[in-house]
Amino acid sequence: MNIRIVTVSREFGSGGRTIAKKLAERTGWAYYDNEIITKIAQESGFAETFVKEHGEYAGSNNSLLYSLNNWNNGGVDDKLYTLQHNLIRSLAEQGPCIIVGRCADYILKDRTDCLNTFIHADLEFRADRITRIYRDEHVGELPEKRLRDKNKRRAAYYRHYTGRQWGQAQNYHLCLNSGMLGLERCVGMIGDLL
Amino acid sequence: MNIRIVTVSREFGSGGRTIAKKLAERTGWAYYDNEIITKIAQESGFAETFVKEHGEYAGSNNSLLYSLNNWNNGGVDDKLYTLQHNLIRSLAEQGPCIIVGRCADYILKDRTDCLNTFIHADLEFRADRITRIYRDEHVGELPEKRLRDKNKRRAAYYRHYTGRQWGQAQNYHLCLNSGMLGLERCVGMIGDLL
Repeated sequence: MNIRIVTVSREFGSGGRTIAKKLAERTGWAYYDNEIITKIAQESGFAETFVKEHGEYAGSNNSLLYSLNNWNNGGVDDKLYTLQHNLIRSLAEQGPCIIVGRCADYILKDRTDCLNTFIHADLEFRADRITRIYRDEHVGELPEKRLRDKNKRRAAYYRHYTGRQWGQAQNYHLCLNSGMLGLERCVGMIGDLL
Repeated sequence: MNIRIVTVSREFGSGGRTIAKKLAERTGWAYYDNEIITKIAQESGFAETFVKEHGEYAGSNNSLLYSLNNWNNGGVDDKLYTLQHNLIRSLAEQGPCIIVGRCADYILKDRTDCLNTFIHADLEFRADRITRIYRDEHVGELPEKRLRDKNKRRAAYYRHYTGRQWGQAQNYHLCLNSGMLGLERCVGMIGDLL
């Protein structure tokens, strides 16, 4: 295996982003997450919050509603997807890197130097984690509801643009339950492959 | 983690069974695969070939046809599933072990000492593998067709009895692409967790 790129797809609250960051520290490789949002915002003129929301989440879990909404707003989601697609391919060319989310596993599927990972965890573990981390941001909202909604909209976005099922093991080389294994061990298991 | 049981679900041709066997050699744990078939055959009176076919594969990919067929043959598939279910729970009680396929991940889902794994690989890798291993058994049959059919029927069986999607990462703690990682490395990665 001659891996130069790691993509990290993750359930909301699973700690996938933390794992990706620690992996970047361990390897010294470039790390792309919010950097992608900033760059797309600069290129498109849209606000970063808008790009963040529309670059990974479908507006609705219903694919027909999503398509209608996208058509209604002048195909802005499709345009953002194309910008993101081209940026991710360009970043992958620049050198060893770790890319979080945004269908990068699919966008880079023709490369042979890419390790695609998926990080997930049981609802209880994720609910506990987001309650601790985001506790001041979403007062009064049930964490389980937020988790289910975020996951559904990530899955809908992924399905819309890739035609694949989000979280289906066959789309990744390595899927890890971070709740069972622990975040540090996940970093170690991926890191040992590089 | 205090793991005493490993379940190995696998795509046909991925080498999942080989990985499970090597893991049993490495750990010295009991290994249950054909042993389950033999035992169920003894208890039910059915031939081993019948138990093998009906204990992991749906008669049809279509769930309605599968239910009708099961009803038509007097619910024999359901009876075999129940025998298998009880046997797997009983084996899990007896001591550390590795169990291949047969919805064991679902059947043992309430245990906290169980590591559920899913082994898969790209179609090309699996086709090459079954052509080498089973080359004398299925002359004239396209390996890709056989692989797709076997996977579909395993998925239909799993969905019918568990209500879950076969191969969905969230159902397992660890999913590995054996084609990308290599069989030996898969054994090592699972073995290091025990």
